Amino acid sequence: MPNPTAAMLVIGDEILSGRTRDSNMHYLAGRLSETGITLTEVRMISDTRDAIIDAVNDLRAKNDNLFTSGGIGPTHDDITADCIAAAFGARIDVRDDARALLQAHYDRSGQELNEARLRMARIPDGATLIDNPVSTAPGFSLGNVHVMAGVPSVFQAMVASVLPTLTGGAPLLSQTLRVMRGEGDIAAPLGKIAAAFPDLSIGSYPFQKDGVYGTNIVVRGTEGALVDAAMIRLSDELSK
Amino acid sequence: MPNPTAAMLVIGDEILSGRTRDSNMHYLAGRLSETGITLTEVRMISDTRDAIIDAVNDLRAKNDNLFTSGGIGPTHDDITADCIAAAFGARIDVRDDARALLQAHYDRSGQELNEARLRMARIPDGATLIDNPVSTAPGFSLGNVHVMAGVPSVFQAMVASVLPTLTGGAPLLSQTLRVMRGEGDIAAPLGKIAAAFPDLSIGSYPFQKDGVYGTNIVVRGTEGALVDAAMIRLSDELSK
Repeated sequence: MPNPTAAMLVIGDEILSGRTRDSNMHYLAGRLSETGITLTEVRMISDTRDAIIDAVNDLRAKNDNLFTSGGIGPTHDDITADCIAAAFGARIDVRDDARALLQAHYDRSGQELNEARLRMARIPDGATLIDNPVSTAPGFSLGNVHVMAGVPSVFQAMVASVLPTLTGGAPLLSQTLRVMRGEGDIAAPLGKIAAAFPDLSIGSYPFQKDGVYGTNIVVRGTEGALVDAAMIRLSDELSK
Repeated sequence: MPNPTAAMLVIGDEILSGRTRDSNMHYLAGRLSETGITLTEVRMISDTRDAIIDAVNDLRAKNDNLFTSGGIGPTHDDITADCIAAAFGARIDVRDDARALLQAHYDRSGQELNEARLRMARIPDGATLIDNPVSTAPGFSLGNVHVMAGVPSVFQAMVASVLPTLTGGAPLLSQTLRVMRGEGDIAAPLGKIAAAFPDLSIGSYPFQKDGVYGTNIVVRGTEGALVDAAMIRLSDELSK
């Protein structure tokens, strides 16, 4: 059976303008590989209502899971929660359980739970809260969509809460063979071996070091014995 | 007149598996901002023929420009050039001008221009070559699609070749105001100011340092006087 699939949607003008370098994509990609969930696509879009709704509906229909990052803070440009509700046709308002979490947090810190902060308690009907051990304001899961913060430390904590609740598959195993030959030198035998192992993904990544060309060949698959067999075949063929 | 738009398509299993961290997106985003081209969307997809063709046709129709990165090397998984040709319904084969570039390069380095390396001279009919001063194998532009290598040093060199040929707009100016108050504290005045300057994008990015909360407020726009006015209004309102 093929592994379950996931897509990711990174929401935020600051990413597209080049001001901020996204790091959540690379983090999630690594964790999904370990969990046996295949990341099929990532999209990065701006804080624009129609763009968010369209992308959410497209990606959640095509994948077993959709993860979003960004746009759930207290300010005017944090519109992700409302857009998710609109994508599902769900009602959204301040919810008592989320408000109670925030109230306790701001009481402890001696700050006011003002109108802006209360926006972070807006949760669509039918959603399950995602725990935020870093800064309290929760994410949420609605259907197969997991809505998380953009701040990397919070995003990572939320991923840790959500992943154990999902159905994973066989983790993606990978082995790397490093050869000191240019990619163009080994492309022909590599192509033959890739054709002989259709269930594996065999990629080649050229590098240059001190004027010498080399290639890292990465074999990925869910069956350890098959990955081993391909590695043996590779080192036989490429040492010729 | 609004600025011209662009999308980016990052192609490669190694990005989605978490093995490689993409850096081309952040680089291109910064260069486009300087050039006055608005980056509307980025997609990251796997080396899969149908996924590439569908994404190329969707994004090139919606944007003035589409930049792709990855999948134009000599190996079996480098299928981008053929997919671009298929997306346009164009014929593709080894082209004399690209072959001559490669032949000269491999003659100089005493290596053989073998069948695998010759794949890098496969260029769709009607395309214009993009210069590669790093490792010779060219990218190409076909219609509004600019096809570039995934290796960051080569990608950056190709961006430098392509950008001057494109119609830019007014560069995106940005100014940042750093306030030592939490995002939730300033969200209400911030929202009012954002509503008063509909032609500007005003974003807020919280940070925490040594247990103190602060926010960077970033004002972006193409009109310097308007950005200045918003900055003055912000520092007036937020110093209250």
